[in-house]
Parts: sequence; C-alpha cells; structure tokens
Amino acid sequence: MPRTLARYLPILTWARSYTRETFSQDMVAAVIVTIMLIPQSLAYALLAGLPPEAGLYASILPIVLYALFGTSTVLAVGPVAVVSLMTAAAIGEVAAQGTAGYATAALTLAGLSGAILLGLGLLRLGFLANFLSHPVIAGFINASGILIALSQMGHILGIKTSGHTLTHLLHSLWSGLGTFNLITLLIGGSAAAFLFWVRKGLKPLLLNLGLGPRLADVLTKAGPVAAVVVTTALAGVLRLDTQGVAIVGTVPQSLPPFTLPDTSLDLIKALILPAVLISIIGFVESISVAQTLAAKRRQRIDPNQELIGLGAANLGAAISGGYPVTGGFSRSVVNFDAGAATPAAGAFTAVGLAIAALALTPLIYFLPKATLAATIIVAVLSLVDLSILKRAWAYSGADFAAILTTILLTLGFGVEIGVSAGVILSIALHLNKTSKPHVAEVGLVPGTEHFRNIKRHSVTTCPSVVTLRVDESLYFANARFLEDYIADRITEDCAVKHVILQFTAVNEVDMSALESLEAINTRLKAMGVKLHLSEVKGPVMDRLQRSHFLQEMGGTVYLSQYEAWQALRDT
Amino acid sequence: MPRTLARYLPILTWARSYTRETFSQDMVAAVIVTIMLIPQSLAYALLAGLPPEAGLYASILPIVLYALFGTSTVLAVGPVAVVSLMTAAAIGEVAAQGTAGYATAALTLAGLSGAILLGLGLLRLGFLANFLSHPVIAGFINASGILIALSQMGHILGIKTSGHTLTHLLHSLWSGLGTFNLITLLIGGSAAAFLFWVRKGLKPLLLNLGLGPRLADVLTKAGPVAAVVVTTALAGVLRLDTQGVAIVGTVPQSLPPFTLPDTSLDLIKALILPAVLISIIGFVESISVAQTLAAKRRQRIDPNQELIGLGAANLGAAISGGYPVTGGFSRSVVNFDAGAATPAAGAFTAVGLAIAALALTPLIYFLPKATLAATIIVAVLSLVDLSILKRAWAYSGADFAAILTTILLTLGFGVEIGVSAGVILSIALHLNKTSKPHVAEVGLVPGTEHFRNIKRHSVTTCPSVVTLRVDESLYFANARFLEDYIADRITEDCAVKHVILQFTAVNEVDMSALESLEAINTRLKAMGVKLHLSEVKGPVMDRLQRSHFLQEMGGTVYLSQYEAWQALRDT
Repeated sequence: MPRTLARYLPILTWARSYTRETFSQDMVAAVIVTIMLIPQSLAYALLAGLPPEAGLYASILPIVLYALFGTSTVLAVGPVAVVSLMTAAAIGEVAAQGTAGYATAALTLAGLSGAILLGLGLLRLGFLANFLSHPVIAGFINASGILIALSQMGHILGIKTSGHTLTHLLHSLWSGLGTFNLITLLIGGSAAAFLFWVRKGLKPLLLNLGLGPRLADVLTKAGPVAAVVVTTALAGVLRLDTQGVAIVGTVPQSLPPFTLPDTSLDLIKALILPAVLISIIGFVESISVAQTLAAKRRQRIDPNQELIGLGAANLGAAISGGYPVTGGFSRSVVNFDAGAATPAAGAFTAVGLAIAALALTPLIYFLPKATLAATIIVAVLSLVDLSILKRAWAYSGADFAAILTTILLTLGFGVEIGVSAGVILSIALHLNKTSKPHVAEVGLVPGTEHFRNIKRHSVTTCPSVVTLRVDESLYFANARFLEDYIADRITEDCAVKHVILQFTAVNEVDMSALESLEAINTRLKAMGVKLHLSEVKGPVMDRLQRSHFLQEMGGTVYLSQYEAWQALRDT
Repeated sequence: MPRTLARYLPILTWARSYTRETFSQDMVAAVIVTIMLIPQSLAYALLAGLPPEAGLYASILPIVLYALFGTSTVLAVGPVAVVSLMTAAAIGEVAAQGTAGYATAALTLAGLSGAILLGLGLLRLGFLANFLSHPVIAGFINASGILIALSQMGHILGIKTSGHTLTHLLHSLWSGLGTFNLITLLIGGSAAAFLFWVRKGLKPLLLNLGLGPRLADVLTKAGPVAAVVVTTALAGVLRLDTQGVAIVGTVPQSLPPFTLPDTSLDLIKALILPAVLISIIGFVESISVAQTLAAKRRQRIDPNQELIGLGAANLGAAISGGYPVTGGFSRSVVNFDAGAATPAAGAFTAVGLAIAALALTPLIYFLPKATLAATIIVAVLSLVDLSILKRAWAYSGADFAAILTTILLTLGFGVEIGVSAGVILSIALHLNKTSKPHVAEVGLVPGTEHFRNIKRHSVTTCPSVVTLRVDESLYFANARFLEDYIADRITEDCAVKHVILQFTAVNEVDMSALESLEAINTRLKAMGVKLHLSEVKGPVMDRLQRSHFLQEMGGTVYLSQYEAWQALRDT
C-alpha cells in the first residue's frame, strides 16, 4: 500500500483491522447518533431557512465522505447551529427564502466551502485558522448564540421574523408581537421548558434512580426526540395546523437528490467571503472537538487531513441537496460516549438517516416548527457564556477588548463584520504589545551566576557596565523602541563604558532590528561606549554572522551573561 | 518655568544659556546652509511641480517653527526629494500643474500633514512609524530615487514628461524623444557630469591640495551653487531662452505670502491618505537623521516632541505658500559639520532665505531648469543602492521579499501602493514566522546545570521526561501549533510520564494560548501524563496566577529547569 495514498485516505489504514467487535460497537453508536440527528438536522435546516429535508440530506453523503478522508474516529459531521446561521445570513443577501434560488445558493455556498477547505488542506495551510484567536471565537459564539435564539423566538411565538442582526431581529419581533399565536407559544414554550429541564434536572434524577452515568447521558441527549414525538402526536391528533400552528408539512420521501451548485461568477463573487469565513469557523469548531476526543484515546488528528475530510464532506453536501456542514460538538460527544470505534460508525449513521429520509418523513408531517425552534434555542443558549468577559477582564485587557468588540459588532452588524473586526483588532493589539517590549536592567544575584531585574531583586551592579535584558524578539515594530530606550538610559550617564544586551528571550532579529543594532552601536561608539551581546541563541547568531554587524560591533559576543560580567566589570 | 511648558517648547530651555559664542557658531552654520538651500529649494519645488518660489517659502516659516518646537539642535527642515515626489503624485491626482488649484492643493496637503503629525505627537503615537520596516523604507527609497531621476530626465532633454510610475514615465520620455533640445541637453548633461565629479572627485583633490577635511566637505556641498551660477550666467549672456532652453523666469520678489489651505471636504478626502503616508515617511526620515546626529553630541531626541515640531513646521508651510516639508538628510549633516550649536542656526537660515526671496530672485531669471534637474538627479541617485537586495537575500528571505515587493510595486503603481503593500507583507510575514515557533526538545549537558537542544548537543535525557523549550511568546497565532506539536510527540510514546515546558523565551501567554495550555493539560491528563512548567518569567507568572490554569495543571511550576529535572527524572 503506497504511503501517500494512505495519508490522503485514512480508511485504507483502519479498514484493514476491522473486526466483528468494532462493527458491533460502531452499530450501537450509529443507532444512538441517528436518533439524535434526525430532529437536529430538521431544526438546523429551519435555522438556515431551508426546507427540512435539506438538513437530512446534509447528514448523509457528507458523513460518508468524511469517514473516507477524515482522521477522527468519532467526529460526527453534519449541519450545526452556527454554520446554519451564517448560511442563512449569507444566502439571504442573494436570494429570498423559499425560492429555488435560495436552495441553489446554499449548494453553491457548500461547494465553495468545500473547495476552500480542500485547497487549504492540500496546500497545508491549516495554520491560518489560528488567526481566529480564542477571544474572537468566544465573542462570536456568544453573539451568534444570542442571535440564533432571537431568530427562533418568532417560531415559538408563531410570528414571522427576519434579519440577522440584533436590531433587525428585535425590530421584527416587536412589530410582529401583536399577531402571536397562543397555541404555538404553548407548544414551543413547554417544549423549551421540558428541554431545559432535561438538560439540568433529568441526569441527576436518572443517576439517583440507579442508572449508569453513560446511559443517563445518552437518555438525556434523547430529550429532543421525546419532545418531537409528543408534540407531533399532539399536533396530529388535535389537528393544531388548523389553529394556526406552523407544522413541517410534506417532506419528500427520497434519498438525497443529485444536485449541482450554480457556478455563475456573480453568485460566486457574492458568496466567496462568507464561504471563507464559514470554512474557517467550521474547521476551528470541528478540529477542537476532534482533538479533545482523540486525546482521550491517545489517537492523532492531522489538521491538514481534517481540512481535506471536511472539504470532501462539503463538496458532498453541494452535490446532494445539502448545505455547509462541519463536525458538531454535541453529536460527536454522543458518538464517542456511545463507543464508536472507527469512522464506519459515521457511515452507519448515514445509512440510518437515509432510511429516515426514505421512510420516516411522513411521520413528521405534523411536527410543529415551534418544537424545532425550542430544540435550537436550548442547544445554543448552552453556548452563551458571558462570564468569559469577566475572566478576560481579569486576565488581560487586550483579550477583553477583542471579545467585547467581536460580540458587539457581531450583534450589531452580523457575523462577518464582527469576526473580521475581531481578527484585525487581535493582530493590532498583539503588534502593539510586542512593539513596546519589556526591557529589564539586570544585575548579578550575589553568590550565584544568575542575573535578575534590578528593580525586583537586590543585585550587584557596576556603574560602568549596563546590562539590558530584552524580553521580546527584535523586529521592525520594536526595533526603534530599543534605540530610544538605550539613548534615554545612556546619554546622560557618563560613567557608562559598556552596554551588554542579554539576548536570552530574543528569538529573532530581523533586518530592521539589525539596522537598529547598527545605529545603536554607531551612536554608542560616538559616546565612547562599547556594545556587547550575551546569551545569543543559535539561530539568531547564525543570522547575525551573515551580516557585517558583528565585525563592526565595538564589543564582544559572550556565551553567558556571567562571562560577560566577569570580563567587563573591572574595565 | 512650568515643566510641561518647557517640554512642549524646548526653546525655553536652550535660549536661557545662549551666549555670544553659540551665536557666532550658529551664524557661520546658517550662512553655509543658506547658500546650499537656495538651489535645493528651487529644484525640489520643480520636482513637486510647483513654481520655484514655493521651495523658498517652504524653507522660511517652517524652519522657524521647528526651531521653536523641535528637539534636535541641528536638524534642517525644508523641502526634500522624496516628499516632493510624493506631493507631485498626490496633488497631480486632484489638479493640473500650473493651475491655482494645484498650489492650493499643495497647501492643503501640508496642512493635513501638519495636523496628522501634531495629532500623533500629542497622542504620543510616534511608535506607529515603526511599522514602516527597514526593508519597506529601503525599497521605497530605491524605487523613489529611480522614479525621481526619470521624472527629471525630461528637463535635461528639454521635453515634457508626465506620470509618477515607471511605465508612464518611460512611455512619456519615449514618445517625446523626437523633440529633444540639444542645447538643453548640453547644459543639463554637463551640469550633471560636473556634479557627479564634485561628489566623487573633488573632495580627494581638495584634501590633496592641503585643505582641512571639514572645509573640503563644505566646498563639495557647494557644488550645486557653482553649477547654478555658471549655467545661469551662460544662459543670460547667450540668451539661451530664445534657443528653446527652459529657464526659471520671473520669480516674485517678496516675503512668503499669507495663504490658506482649501478646507473643502472632497479635497481633504482625496488627500488624506497621501498625507498620512507623507507624514509618516517624512517623520521616519527626519527622526533617523536627528538621532544619528544627536548621538554624536550625546544629546537626546524626543520622538513625540519631534512629531510636534514637524507638525508645526508643516502647518507653517500651509499658511505661508509652501508645501510639505521634513528634516532633510544632506542639509542637516552640513548644518552639523558647519558647527550649528542651537536651533537658532535654523532661524538664521530662515532669515537668509527670506533675504534671498526678497532680493535675489531677479538673479535667477535665467537659471536653466535643466541645471536644477541635474542637481536633483545627482542627489537622488546617491540614495539608490540596490545592493540592499543582495544583503537582504543573504540575511533573510522575508526581508528580501518585503524589499522586492516594495520596489516593484512602487515602480509599477506609485509610492502609496508600494509602501502599503510592503507594510502589509511585512506584518503578514512576521505573523507567519511567529506562528510556527521553534520548539527544541532539550536535555542536560552532563556535568552542568544547562539544558540544550538534543539535536545539536550530546545531552542526557530520560525516557519518562520530555522537556520542550518553546522559543517564542505564546499567542493566538501559534497556540494551536504547540497543541499539535505535543500531540505528535507524546501520543505514540507510551514511556512518557512527564512533559516539562521550559518558558525561558516565553514573554507572553495570551488568552488563546492559555486555552491551548488548558487543552494540552487536559489531553495529557487523559493519557496519564503530567504537565509541568519551568523558568516562567515574572510577568507571565503574574498573569497565569490570575487564571485557574495553575490549579488545574497536573504538575508543578519549577523555578529552574534543573530543579524540574532533579525532581522528575527518577519518578
């Protein structure tokens, strides 16, 4: 078996050791995940503004393709809340909900996402996702959670809402409030209350009743299924649709259709930016779930191969009537807890959903949309955790600013502007921080060979020798800072004969910094002061040796600060 | 005397100790600089597309204002080549050369520059200029030098040229080539040849004749004056203007007029971006000259006060018929060499130029424009030094890429696009570099307490303890890199019981990195491996203590790596 092929097709590795035992483990997990996925898929399709079957279709071919190309044994790929919201926002700009153009735009968005993810994976550019910092992700998830919950309030109240920003949503809720439907509200409200109770109260109860913690967990996760079954039965028996309760209605009984995205240049131009953002956000969500679960089993996740797996899954969604997908958090945890042993569990889930799409759709004819909305609200509100703001405030002002900016701009202007502003702000704050590095003047701790900050410790110094420890790599943004710092320190102190720069924490000296070092050296020479370096790292030294700086420098490069001190203190 | 006032008005400090001796030093310097400045001011005005008197006016009030607010004793403020080129490019977009609107736009540009510089100074934002990295500055100066020299070739050939990019300039030179004027070419060509010889050959000759090096220098710098005098006399005696030689013509005999910039919003919008760039580039050029000269006299330059001084100078240019100014390199060096002792030397220069503007302008009626063009070409070609590309190639690929990009885009699309692209590329390359930090697995150098890279040194290790030294601050762009790195290293090595992260070179741990450390800790715990830290710096430790990470961490924080090794190697 050629190794490159095995790298790009992990299935070639795990399928060889597939046994009857792993098969039965995978089957059990697949059944549990399928039951959980059916209401979730329908609900997220609703959130994306698509017909319910789009959610089912998005969970079939994509799962199979991820099983072929992905590296996680337990990641469950399919529609997720945040990506569904972003899909609705993106394609809402180019087509009206319910039109054929809207569904086609969703396919195109999935196709673009797939191409982007695949491209990033093949070019091994997965690290780009790192620029989505933790504060930006946290801010964006919180704000999205609030926006998603608000967008579903209309279904719970039985009124039409529109918009993907806080003001639009609040405005449309407020103006529709007069036309709310009481029965819808009763169904949606009690479903939500039931689901909240399942999350908070059911598990302790089951544990008290003597159930094992794993079974209790799985039963808790099945709460939405119970809500779906009960409210659908109620709506069917009482014919609530005649009372103004919105129901799912006819869902075609079929396997996923073969579809083609629209490749017109105008549509692609309109969707390319949202597609980039959906891809990266989806990838970040997926990879962090996959890595956390993989560590529990000492398994490895290859981020670039994950990009390929998710890319294939999205391309699959594009040609089978779906919309953008990614690895979901809650269903992957269920899959893991239920004992899925290989990606085959995912393939079996796909079979389960295919059966549901073929045979079970008539059963959900009477399913109230308010029930689906309730499952979404309960799911996303668990993601909203504004205490991150408090923690960030305590930890670092820059991180706090990034979170707050992302939250406010996402709420006010949508996910794209919020996340872009958050990323730009994070980079700007980081550059600002490194542009004013911490520089400590150090002295010898008596009786040791260690040097410490003269402001924090009682140390030995010598008036003719100034040692400065620079706590940052030297590059263009902070190079001149050091020039100014040394000029400030030395200019008026005529006792100084030697300046030692201790480079322990300097991991890089770029050309601008080299220029600054040369300027520092020239200016110190003009004052009759010698410049020395100590504890220069290998890679930095290699590079300095390729320039003329070391020849021009007045002083010496010492291996250790202590050596420098010994050589210079008596001169 | 209140201290804040003294900070913003340095004159209050130096004027108190002004003596007869400093007065005579300043007078000598002022006379020399005045003689040098007259042809330079006329030439740079020509380069900016303005009438010659604009150059003189830009050297009078701005110099006086800088003397009041600046901190350098020797910086000579006025029109400079690069800023003149950028002025021509910027206002060429909004008005036609020779119109009243063109001169007004120049005033507006100076006013905007002044306001920006003053604002940056008062807000103490001088560090922003650092984002103009050395490669970008070098690239931009080289490209500008080539563009300026080409733009003056038209004057030497006696043909009309236009444009501010390589292709435009070459095209207009080529299409005008048929109409060149032989006498103009003879004057311009011999002036250029003479000036090149003055630069290269005159100084050694004078030194051989027994002159002092300082006098030889000053005489060399007076070369342009000789060229102006001789060619003007020639043109006047032979009435070369009737032979098609372009001459300066009538220059009004007056002190600088009182002028007002145009404050219409459209014009400000069109000029604001060029103004930002002119301000920052002018500031960078000026501050580096000022600091280099100040170091030679052990004097201090305050970068933020320099912004205020240059801001005042530009506002002065805006209200006295000038255009954007900054501290010039060559004239400041002359001022320094001639012995200027205080900023009063600048004020005396202003008086000299005012006398020139009042009384001497009739003398330059016959001054051929080709002579001025020759002085510009010789001055800027000395700035062109493409060997920087070779040095950058040897030193670092990222710096080389930044220089090449800036040069090519400046030549092809102008200074604004070239410099912006260079800055963005520099930032992107820096982030890319820090996003893949160097991580070394280290072991104990036998017989010492030092730890070194196991790949570079022969060191002692222990199969159950893995020590990783992270050579970079941990922040969002590289946080997940460490997660992947550790997962790769540990997952399949079941002997490992302890992972120590040696934080010697970690100057920051932001919230994203904290999240990653938590993830690493959780995953290692799941594998039965303990995470430890060693040599954590004070500020980093302070911050970690404000989070829950240290409580959750399985292992210990050791002060030194050797302590960690001793504690863990036998477990």
